[in-house]
Amino acid sequence: MAHIQLPEGLPGILGPMAYSPQTTKPLNELAETLLRTNASNSLTQGERELIASYTSRRNDCFFCSTSHGAAADYLLGRDNQVVAQTWENPDAAPISAKMKALLKIADSVQQGGKHVTPQQVDEARQQGATDRNIHDTVLIAAAFCMYNRYVDGLATWAPQDPAVYAEMGEMLATQGYVYVTEAQLT
Amino acid sequence: MAHIQLPEGLPGILGPMAYSPQTTKPLNELAETLLRTNASNSLTQGERELIASYTSRRNDCFFCSTSHGAAADYLLGRDNQVVAQTWENPDAAPISAKMKALLKIADSVQQGGKHVTPQQVDEARQQGATDRNIHDTVLIAAAFCMYNRYVDGLATWAPQDPAVYAEMGEMLATQGYVYVTEAQLT
Repeated sequence: MAHIQLPEGLPGILGPMAYSPQTTKPLNELAETLLRTNASNSLTQGERELIASYTSRRNDCFFCSTSHGAAADYLLGRDNQVVAQTWENPDAAPISAKMKALLKIADSVQQGGKHVTPQQVDEARQQGATDRNIHDTVLIAAAFCMYNRYVDGLATWAPQDPAVYAEMGEMLATQGYVYVTEAQLT
Repeated sequence: MAHIQLPEGLPGILGPMAYSPQTTKPLNELAETLLRTNASNSLTQGERELIASYTSRRNDCFFCSTSHGAAADYLLGRDNQVVAQTWENPDAAPISAKMKALLKIADSVQQGGKHVTPQQVDEARQQGATDRNIHDTVLIAAAFCMYNRYVDGLATWAPQDPAVYAEMGEMLATQGYVYVTEAQLT
């Protein structure tokens, strides 16, 4: 049971989002910009969702890791099991050397901002990462340290059926955060 | 030196915010809503800044803890040293029993969402906390787990002069987040 009385039937972050529309607006705009709009000038949308999902998994947030993992799977190709392999061991996953280096930065951000080292940043640069890639990785990982805490700090419930997440992931990937939330909440 | 090339002369979060205006818009709107606009229906503005500052201190983020501590000091009365006492030991600080209970929830959120216990929430309710108080405490603490990581994950610099923060705190408290950032960045 959630720690506060939330609108019924809405899983994960959607409960608190329906409860507090004023804060939901910037929370959704941030996700939309970070995970979708910015994709044109830097990391792909699939890579962004992978960072979001990976960070959420490190924070042990079932709802966020599974929903953003499903979005990443949709974008990167479900048959490749990229998300599952990345969760298990990024260094052995079928992702680029640049992404492996960026996920090490995300891992550090998850532990705390000061855990990011100049060596990690140098390694990412050597693998082709730009300032924009590094900036966006840090902010995506930081933002999911917020979303994950919002979801679990209020003890929201999460569906267990993988099919629910597969559908949600495709909707998030193709329609976006503002659209999906509004569709669910109205 | 920051991990990426940021506009010069802007301390703390203002460097990355100038670098990435698209994400700055929702980041500022979230701070404005959480710390200022919502104050009318729940916790006071000073209490909100105290939660922000306390969480940032727990995350060892000098820029955020000091600037939001200065805003809280301005709002709660600088002579009372409420912020310094709360950082030292919330249970012994001159704050309400409700705030002490809410800061325990913030402390748990800082460690991770699942650290918040039903007992902590019950204790907050017994001290008069509403669902809205609990929701806002969780989201403020979660949001500062993001802001702190954004500031330190990019290794931004921070002024050391307390007078700079006193002025910044007053500006944030009286003019707000959108205004101050735009004034600094333009």
